[in-house]
Amino acid sequence: MPELRRDPIIGRWVIIAQERGKRPYDFIIEKDKAKGGFCPLCPGNEKTTPPEVLAYGRPYHDPNGPGWKLRVVPNKYPALIIEGELDKRGEGIYDKMNGIGAHEVIVETPKHHETISTMPLEQLQLVFMAYKDRIIDLARDKRFKYIIVFKNFGKAAGASLEHSHSQLIALPIVPQLIQEELDGCKKYFDYKERCVFCDIIRQERQQNLRVVCENEEFITICPFAPRSPFEMWVMPKRHQSRFVSIDDHQASSLTRHFSLTMKKLNAILPNVPYNFMLHTAPLTDFGLEHFHWHIEIMPKVNTVAGFEWGTGFYINTTPPEESARILRDSNPKQEGE
Amino acid sequence: MPELRRDPIIGRWVIIAQERGKRPYDFIIEKDKAKGGFCPLCPGNEKTTPPEVLAYGRPYHDPNGPGWKLRVVPNKYPALIIEGELDKRGEGIYDKMNGIGAHEVIVETPKHHETISTMPLEQLQLVFMAYKDRIIDLARDKRFKYIIVFKNFGKAAGASLEHSHSQLIALPIVPQLIQEELDGCKKYFDYKERCVFCDIIRQERQQNLRVVCENEEFITICPFAPRSPFEMWVMPKRHQSRFVSIDDHQASSLTRHFSLTMKKLNAILPNVPYNFMLHTAPLTDFGLEHFHWHIEIMPKVNTVAGFEWGTGFYINTTPPEESARILRDSNPKQEGE
Repeated sequence: MPELRRDPIIGRWVIIAQERGKRPYDFIIEKDKAKGGFCPLCPGNEKTTPPEVLAYGRPYHDPNGPGWKLRVVPNKYPALIIEGELDKRGEGIYDKMNGIGAHEVIVETPKHHETISTMPLEQLQLVFMAYKDRIIDLARDKRFKYIIVFKNFGKAAGASLEHSHSQLIALPIVPQLIQEELDGCKKYFDYKERCVFCDIIRQERQQNLRVVCENEEFITICPFAPRSPFEMWVMPKRHQSRFVSIDDHQASSLTRHFSLTMKKLNAILPNVPYNFMLHTAPLTDFGLEHFHWHIEIMPKVNTVAGFEWGTGFYINTTPPEESARILRDSNPKQEGE
Repeated sequence: MPELRRDPIIGRWVIIAQERGKRPYDFIIEKDKAKGGFCPLCPGNEKTTPPEVLAYGRPYHDPNGPGWKLRVVPNKYPALIIEGELDKRGEGIYDKMNGIGAHEVIVETPKHHETISTMPLEQLQLVFMAYKDRIIDLARDKRFKYIIVFKNFGKAAGASLEHSHSQLIALPIVPQLIQEELDGCKKYFDYKERCVFCDIIRQERQQNLRVVCENEEFITICPFAPRSPFEMWVMPKRHQSRFVSIDDHQASSLTRHFSLTMKKLNAILPNVPYNFMLHTAPLTDFGLEHFHWHIEIMPKVNTVAGFEWGTGFYINTTPPEESARILRDSNPKQEGE
C-alpha cells in the first residue's frame, strides 16, 4: 500500500509508492512504438491496460475494444490506490496516511503520433470534456480533497509513453503548491477585495507586454515572474474558480484558444518537452471569489532545473516579455484556415 | 542588469538574468576537458576566469596564477551583479528590484578529475573552509540577506563544467523555500519549545530506520518524507543555527562525516548526478533557537522531475528506510584504512 508522508518542517506531502519502482522504464524506452515496439495505448491493445473508466465515441458495444475516440483507464502503475480507508496516523513527530487516491490515464486520441498541437479541434475538445467528466465523477468520493490533472510531454518532461496522454491524480489532501496559491489569493483578496488573477488579466491587457494571444473567453500570458523561458498561463477572462464550471460555449472557446497556444509553442520550439497542469479550486470549495482556475504550461528548455527544484529559487534566462513577443509573432496555421 | 521579480500570488522571487542567455552551453559541452577540450577551472588557465576573490595554498605571490589548492572566482556568467543599488519598485500590481547580488564559483580542487567523494580529507576541509570564509566576507555587505551555497554535480543536475566546483549566490532576499523552512521551524518551536531538527535527530537515533551514518558531531539521515530516492540530510547533532559558527573541531568532524556520506552514495550509484545545498540561517539572524543548519543532498536518479518541480508534489518510488539501509550497509574505503 502506498503511503502519504508529511514533511514535519515545511508540511510538504510526499507519496511513497514503492510499487512504482517496478515500472518497466527500460521496457518502455526500448520498445516504444516509435522504435517499432508495442504501445499499450493504441487501439487493438485495450486488453493490456486496466479496464477503462470512460470512453467516448465507440460506435458499438465492446468495452475495452477498439473504435473509441478517447479513453480513460486507471494507471497500470498507480502512485495511489483506490481501495481502503485513509487511516491517518503518527509515527513519533511524523504524520502519515494510507496512499488512498485515484491515478488515471487519459488516452487523448487513438492515433499514436497525434499531439495536442496537431490534433483536430473536435478531438482536443474531447480531452477537456474528459477532464471535466472524470473530475465530476471522482468528486463524488468524499475521501478526495483535490484532483490534479496534468500532462507530461516528452521524455525530458517525465513521459514514459509516447502516445499522447494526460494523467489525473485524486488526492485526500490539497497539494502544497496549490494551498500556497490559495493562501496567496486569499491574502490579496482580503486586502484588495479583488481576485488577483482578474487584476493580472486587467494589467496584462493594458500593458500588452506579456500577452501571447486571447479570444472572447480566454487569454494566454507569459507570467511576470516565470520559472522558465516560454512558461505560459491560460486563464478564463471571466472570473471562475472551478474548471468543472465551464459551459459548452466556454469549452469550445477554450479548445480553439488552447490549440492556438500549443501550436504557437510548437512553431517556436518543435516537439519541445513540456508539462502542463490544471490549477482549479479544491473539490469542497464552490464559487471562491478569490481563486481563478488556470492552466500552467512549463516547457523544458534547459536542463538546469536540478538546483531550482531543490531550492524553490529560479533563474530564468529569458524575460517573459521576450518569450511573449516571440510566441505572439508566430502564426501557425489553424484549423479551417 | 538582471532583475528580481516577485510572483504576485505565491510570493516566489525569480531572477530574470538575460545575460546568462549568452552562456556558451554548447561550447562547454563540446569542448569540456573530458573530451579533450579546454577547462577554465584548471591550473594554468586562471586568466580565463574573472580575478579570484580567494585562494588557499598558493606558495608564492602570484594572484591568478597556478599553485593554489582551492580558488574562488566570480561566476563569468553571473545570475546577479555586485554593483548597484537595490532599487525596489512596483509595476502595477507587480514587484521587482535590481538583480544585485554575488555569484561565485568555488573551484574545489586543482585536479580536474577529483570529486567530493574521491578527494583527500584535507582538500574537502578546504572546501568547507572556503564556504565559511566567503559567507563571512559577503555578510559584511548589508544589502545581502541570504547566501545560498550549493553544488551541481553532473550534467543532469545542471553542472555545465566537469571540473569539481560549488557555487554561492548572495541575495538581497531570503529564498522562498528557506523562508518556509524558517516559518515551519518557528511554528514547531512556538508549540513545543523545541527545535524540530533536534527532535528529528532524537527520534531518528531511537528508531534507527533512516540513519545512514553518524560520528561524534554529525549525523546523516534519509528524511521521513523524501522528494527522491537516496535523498540525505547531513546535520550537526548539537543545536546550531548558522553554518559559520562551526569551530575547527566541528569542521574536521564534518569533513570526515561528509566524505563518508558521499563515498557511500558513490559506492551505491557511481558518479550519480546530484545537487547539494547548505541550509543555514539568514545573515541577520544570530543564534536562532528554532532553526538548525544542515546540508540537503538530492541525487538525480530518475528523470520524472518535470511534473514534481512544477507542482510541489512528489512521488518517490523508494522508501527512505530502504535508501538508508542500502547506504548504511555500503562500506566504501575511507582515508587511512
